[in-house]
Amino acid sequence: MSEHILLTPGPTPLPPSVRAKMAEPILHHRTQEFAQVFQRVLAGMQQVFRTKSQTLMLTTSGTGAMESAVANLLSPGDRALVHSTGAFGNRFVKILKAYGIEPMVIFEEWGEAAQPQRLKALLNASPGFKVVFFQHTDTSTGVLNDIETLSRTVRENSDALVVVDTVSGLAAERFETDSWGVDVALTGSQKGLMNAPGLAFAAVSEKAWTACGTAKLPRFYLDWRTMRDSLPQKETPYTPAVSLVVAQAEALRLILKEGLDNVVNRTRELALYTRTEVTNRLGLRLFAKDPAHILTAAWLPEGADGDALLKNLLTEERISIANGQEKLKGKIIRIAHMGYISKSDVQAGLSALERRLKTLIGAVRSRS
Amino acid sequence: MSEHILLTPGPTPLPPSVRAKMAEPILHHRTQEFAQVFQRVLAGMQQVFRTKSQTLMLTTSGTGAMESAVANLLSPGDRALVHSTGAFGNRFVKILKAYGIEPMVIFEEWGEAAQPQRLKALLNASPGFKVVFFQHTDTSTGVLNDIETLSRTVRENSDALVVVDTVSGLAAERFETDSWGVDVALTGSQKGLMNAPGLAFAAVSEKAWTACGTAKLPRFYLDWRTMRDSLPQKETPYTPAVSLVVAQAEALRLILKEGLDNVVNRTRELALYTRTEVTNRLGLRLFAKDPAHILTAAWLPEGADGDALLKNLLTEERISIANGQEKLKGKIIRIAHMGYISKSDVQAGLSALERRLKTLIGAVRSRS
Repeated sequence: MSEHILLTPGPTPLPPSVRAKMAEPILHHRTQEFAQVFQRVLAGMQQVFRTKSQTLMLTTSGTGAMESAVANLLSPGDRALVHSTGAFGNRFVKILKAYGIEPMVIFEEWGEAAQPQRLKALLNASPGFKVVFFQHTDTSTGVLNDIETLSRTVRENSDALVVVDTVSGLAAERFETDSWGVDVALTGSQKGLMNAPGLAFAAVSEKAWTACGTAKLPRFYLDWRTMRDSLPQKETPYTPAVSLVVAQAEALRLILKEGLDNVVNRTRELALYTRTEVTNRLGLRLFAKDPAHILTAAWLPEGADGDALLKNLLTEERISIANGQEKLKGKIIRIAHMGYISKSDVQAGLSALERRLKTLIGAVRSRS
Repeated sequence: MSEHILLTPGPTPLPPSVRAKMAEPILHHRTQEFAQVFQRVLAGMQQVFRTKSQTLMLTTSGTGAMESAVANLLSPGDRALVHSTGAFGNRFVKILKAYGIEPMVIFEEWGEAAQPQRLKALLNASPGFKVVFFQHTDTSTGVLNDIETLSRTVRENSDALVVVDTVSGLAAERFETDSWGVDVALTGSQKGLMNAPGLAFAAVSEKAWTACGTAKLPRFYLDWRTMRDSLPQKETPYTPAVSLVVAQAEALRLILKEGLDNVVNRTRELALYTRTEVTNRLGLRLFAKDPAHILTAAWLPEGADGDALLKNLLTEERISIANGQEKLKGKIIRIAHMGYISKSDVQAGLSALERRLKTLIGAVRSRS
């Protein structure tokens, strides 16, 4: 069986040395040996987040990290704002509602970036937000948000904390936690970080720690305070996903050896190449007006059955390309080019798509 | 470097084929291929839990599963009872308090099993509990609780749900979810299940699902309802720890191929051997009055520095044996013999301990 080509926006393929680390005999999590690996991961994450703040590690998917920001920063009755640019912005809305907090939401059209002027107008019209939630990149649409400007807009117009989900953006797009004034940055292991899914990370500013100390929403497994209290012992409060931590240390070593700027540049080059090919060679229209470099989302031809196309691509050629989410299912495709995804992976995907689209367009035409 | 011998009660060592599975190229979690693996894991867990109820999978450690039972079954103002036999019973107390529920607690002396007559007396003296929480085995003390009798005692004296943490007991001690009337059984991947840490499982009865539907505590990532709603698509609501799921399928295959009864018998034989050796050869006094077969806990000689003993054993001989927890730290040792831990692993640990204890006892005597 040929190797599966993963062009999905997480999980992304793993470098061979990362996979090999996962197969090593398991370490006990209360040993000096594991403590050193854990410390390397937290220090590496500070470099990737570009922060001097404490970084925390969670044994959850990225959604667990998103929920941890809600549960650790807010109290019943607090006001929260979500500036949503897609399915993952809407996930923050759902989490807040699950905790009894009815957020205000700015919904942008899917495919459009968060507009700082809409944010500014709302912050001034409706003061008193405790937290504003953003996505760095929303994987559902492939849009890139200008977090630097959005974060400055929050700081200039309110006292709210800035929380950014960069689960799909980190180590692929430029991201600066400290110099952009981001209070809490959240990410997952399975995208730009080139690890298997199951770990998540948070960088937490001093201002956010103060809010955490007085927040009243219930939390235990996701409680940042117990994570911080275990750090002097170089431990996690509960058994972590040891094999994923060991693998993450190796993946971070690869990222930092290449250099974060080089990783971002490589991702951008692959994104520009893919966009050109999708437009010129495949003849598809790009979906996002403000596209990120993590993935290329494009409209399928009118009348094409996107679900069948992607399903057949996977079963017949073992190439995974992501479908649209929610209202875009079957209508757009999403080709990721972050993390360990290579140019040859993308080329294989594009060639297969080109062949299948020709047949598909022929079929659509002969039906009409 | 010689291989590390893990005699700790989780993570336990992994069979080579399980480790090899983790190193395979990663699957995307929205594919038929992953769906089949996921289905095999859930079906395998039904067999191991001995239940016809729906089993759920969480990407968390065992503590996340414990918290999920609290958050999914209770509402503010509900009454809960914890029958605690050690550190993990106390963890249920902490979780409940974090959610604003002040539980009643029956504390047994550490090392003693939960006494059904104390439970019965309290259930009758103080009616109206919504949930009663137990540990099958409490890893902090190596005690085995008689869940069959405790569960019957709850049913005969109240309408409360029976929740059992069998994180360290499952696939090592006999456990019968359905025939013992357990409403919710919880476990983790890294002990009897012979997988790396990072996954947890819950078996949820119809009565518990009814409670889940009306419970008002906030939950999102740990919400059992979204997990159940994703099952018809053979999916998880959020990205699962794919590599751990693939490894779990392999570990379950090994367990079911050996036969669950044979696994339990093998664990018991190794436990009996270890207890005899610890008592007769090492001259130590067993800690638990009602010992489980998952691990042997024993008192160190008076005046011995247990912290140093175990630290040196690890750094000099690469053998991990667990220390006591909380008030027992430095005073007891805990030798696990569950999961993939072999008789030769245990023998290596016992021999090393024997040598070191002789020196230690000599030193203690010459000081006094």
